[in-house]
Amino acid sequence: MVFIGIDVGGTKIACGVTDEEGVILSRVSTGTLAHRPFAAVVRDMADAALEALAQSGHEIADVGAVGVGIPGVAENVNGTVIFCTNLGWENVPLRRELNRYIDKPVFIDNDATLAGLAESVAGVSRGAASSVFITLGTGVGGGIILNGRPWAGAQGAASELGHMTLCIDGVPCSCGKKGCLERYCSATALIRMGREAAAEHPDSLILTMAGGEPDNINGKIVVDAARQGDPAALSVFDRYTTYLALAVNNVVTFLDPEVIVLGGGVSQAGAFLADAVREKVPGLLLFKALSFGRLELAVLGNEAGIIGAAMLGRLMRGGETL
Amino acid sequence: MVFIGIDVGGTKIACGVTDEEGVILSRVSTGTLAHRPFAAVVRDMADAALEALAQSGHEIADVGAVGVGIPGVAENVNGTVIFCTNLGWENVPLRRELNRYIDKPVFIDNDATLAGLAESVAGVSRGAASSVFITLGTGVGGGIILNGRPWAGAQGAASELGHMTLCIDGVPCSCGKKGCLERYCSATALIRMGREAAAEHPDSLILTMAGGEPDNINGKIVVDAARQGDPAALSVFDRYTTYLALAVNNVVTFLDPEVIVLGGGVSQAGAFLADAVREKVPGLLLFKALSFGRLELAVLGNEAGIIGAAMLGRLMRGGETL
Repeated sequence: MVFIGIDVGGTKIACGVTDEEGVILSRVSTGTLAHRPFAAVVRDMADAALEALAQSGHEIADVGAVGVGIPGVAENVNGTVIFCTNLGWENVPLRRELNRYIDKPVFIDNDATLAGLAESVAGVSRGAASSVFITLGTGVGGGIILNGRPWAGAQGAASELGHMTLCIDGVPCSCGKKGCLERYCSATALIRMGREAAAEHPDSLILTMAGGEPDNINGKIVVDAARQGDPAALSVFDRYTTYLALAVNNVVTFLDPEVIVLGGGVSQAGAFLADAVREKVPGLLLFKALSFGRLELAVLGNEAGIIGAAMLGRLMRGGETL
Repeated sequence: MVFIGIDVGGTKIACGVTDEEGVILSRVSTGTLAHRPFAAVVRDMADAALEALAQSGHEIADVGAVGVGIPGVAENVNGTVIFCTNLGWENVPLRRELNRYIDKPVFIDNDATLAGLAESVAGVSRGAASSVFITLGTGVGGGIILNGRPWAGAQGAASELGHMTLCIDGVPCSCGKKGCLERYCSATALIRMGREAAAEHPDSLILTMAGGEPDNINGKIVVDAARQGDPAALSVFDRYTTYLALAVNNVVTFLDPEVIVLGGGVSQAGAFLADAVREKVPGLLLFKALSFGRLELAVLGNEAGIIGAAMLGRLMRGGETL
């Protein structure tokens, strides 16, 4: 039996077929062109999925289920996408529409949650009874996997780690609150701190590496300048990893998972990032004599979307619910 | 079949026998006298439990299991209490010691977690697939119940909500961090804010109700003064419930449970408290169009300890693990 995984992004839809272990057998991508009507987007989604199926050498009878990851909130009773801001979707019947082209069980979940599921099936948290995935990108997303299954929450709105309050009266957030975690731990936050440091220290390597142009400063530049020992960059990196350690500690204090996985753009800083956070978390723990599980970097990269969606289909087709 | 529930506190050990639904059939209490050796405390615990059993009209053959709630961290592989600061216990073999007197399966968990379990079996969150219990006492504790079972975490250290960071560089906490949630949401925090307000507004009803003595100010006085419309007390109550709403929103943002239960001393403020928090949470939600489950007040009071411990025994004796 094989599974179709569909990873819907704001610009690209990535479809793939996997085996039961989440190994990708084939993949086909298509543009999202999100301004189009919902039905048109879903038709292209189905076309790409069926093309990937053909390329895998399997046929529709071999497909166990279809999983779809979206940057939003979904529910799996009716298979509806409740919100998907990037695509302008609100309460759209994705399962029903997709079933017009592919008559198989369809299940939908948040993309960060599915990336976490992918890592727990075929990646760095494989075999762990519990894991929490934290994506460090433009914002901060999360995926909670308990007993091998994604935890969606009662309204499908769980694991939005980026919008937990980390600082009362802190940095204003686009969600309307202040001090949301993603204002301190996202790539956006790292860049903001890097630009502030460069403005304060014009002789910093951060600005040199950005060609003297503050707008060119990105997360990689800040991390690379810190790696090279630039004092201003090191100070930013120290603050950023302190915030990230507080975020990790909050996850530990709440759920005490076996593994915490860092993914998303900033996680490409690799061991330099992970080691800094690993060093800071123990001092924050409530029970200093206990460990805090493993802190790991995501290993599946862009493949996590397809794998996680396909594995959602595998998990859910049995009709089990969380 | 009946179950023995033992609720171990710093000053009192409450033992009870319940039926399979968590209805208490009998109960016997004894002093903890925590300064004594561990073995002496456990012997009294067993004596009280067996006396409760006799009073219930049942005998040892009717007992399915024994559950014990402790103000600390435990693990159920060997039945060890890892930490229990109030009692000075560290890595003590509670199951083994208790089995010297009662030869039944023994399971141990944190008392706030078990209060949450009690509410989910026989109280306000009965029937909910997921709930998070928040105790508002001297500190802030938590209990996470998912699919009817307590979530202990990989190291048994989960649901310590009081020590999640709510404010970077905030009020220093006894745990060594700054800005822990319990520095804003505990009874202790409410009293601290009440005393500060009374010092600033000596004409406030808070001070009058405390007989002019700042040291007499407690949480009930602050709440009662607010209820009577005292401006200084209302301002404190507004700040306190804003912090509590941020804490509730963090729980929703993370786990999106079906029910959030407020327990502990401050929850005795009743609907006055719950309504204020219910009013504030919707404005904090990331997905404003979604609900956030039900916010409820605990209903089992002091009985929650015995009921939760007994129901832990009922859940765990089947050998199921979370």
